[in-house]
Amino acid sequence: MTSAAPRRGRRPGAPDTRAAILAAARSLFASAGYAGTSVRSVAAAAGVDAALVHHYFGTKDDLFIAALELPVDPRVVTRPVIEGGPDGAGERLMRLFAAVWDDEHTRTPLLALVRGILEPEGQQLVQDGFLRMVLQPVGAGLGIDDPDRRLPLVASQLVGIVVLRHVIGLEPLASMSADDLVAVYAPTLQRYLTGPLP
Amino acid sequence: MTSAAPRRGRRPGAPDTRAAILAAARSLFASAGYAGTSVRSVAAAAGVDAALVHHYFGTKDDLFIAALELPVDPRVVTRPVIEGGPDGAGERLMRLFAAVWDDEHTRTPLLALVRGILEPEGQQLVQDGFLRMVLQPVGAGLGIDDPDRRLPLVASQLVGIVVLRHVIGLEPLASMSADDLVAVYAPTLQRYLTGPLP
Repeated sequence: MTSAAPRRGRRPGAPDTRAAILAAARSLFASAGYAGTSVRSVAAAAGVDAALVHHYFGTKDDLFIAALELPVDPRVVTRPVIEGGPDGAGERLMRLFAAVWDDEHTRTPLLALVRGILEPEGQQLVQDGFLRMVLQPVGAGLGIDDPDRRLPLVASQLVGIVVLRHVIGLEPLASMSADDLVAVYAPTLQRYLTGPLP
Repeated sequence: MTSAAPRRGRRPGAPDTRAAILAAARSLFASAGYAGTSVRSVAAAAGVDAALVHHYFGTKDDLFIAALELPVDPRVVTRPVIEGGPDGAGERLMRLFAAVWDDEHTRTPLLALVRGILEPEGQQLVQDGFLRMVLQPVGAGLGIDDPDRRLPLVASQLVGIVVLRHVIGLEPLASMSADDLVAVYAPTLQRYLTGPLP
């Protein structure tokens, strides 16, 4: 699988194989998007068997999350938003959003991702990384109607907050408490999730 | 004022002086921001008298708008938003926003500006270009309370729409009609402008 020299305390070659798979995945997801990339194509590009990709990374979603270097697993952290049901989902989503962005350990890597949002890969980042991995599972878990129209509205508010509060640091947004963020934005998110649509 | 050679049909030197003032203004606004830049400092950097800056560009606001190369004068196009008063201001603002961004002649130069929003000059662009030149006059004209807290909320929604709809081209946002945009977003803007704050 690899020609790397043995290293102390590790299975020979394994780290390089894992890195090769991850590099191939990043390259393919970036050029072909999530939908246009398969575990098989990543394996072929890395010169390994597809079973090895599954062995190291699990599912295609797991591989995608690893390729994006997301600091948290969105499937785990969004569970409380889903489990409470549609009522109050806007508030729970906004509280989760504030918690993730106010924690330095998650904010720093997310900021690095967000800085690419206006680059050509920005659409993939929002479409696949944010909508597919974060918001669509929330919408499906909540059972909201018309998620393909509603979730981009949610994204349009959250992306605006990220840009002004965290990238630009615009006051007083940058210093707003989580409670104030929830008070201001939860009704907006709730309306986009469950309110009337034109 | 300048050593440029005479050109046919133009006052000798005038275009170069104007260009020198504009270049100095761009450089100073970019490095010192709107508040840190004076007509006098622009004149000094361009090696001309302050009266000449006023002669070519009018007020400091006029000079700033010229330096940003805004395709429309925000003080003119926002008048109908202000004149209708606070009731329905969210709807009128959203309709103006859709009209400006759906017109190719204004969208193209605005897009060029917005692509710098995540760069170091992004804060100046939003703080001085968008808030000071567009939203603050609207807030003042409408007489809303607490504009320094409310207008950044309005900006956070509009910036998110610009990024997803116009920069990234995320569907179905990218194809939404002006009427649908107004139906979805006007209540949000109205609440940020005149609704309860935490």
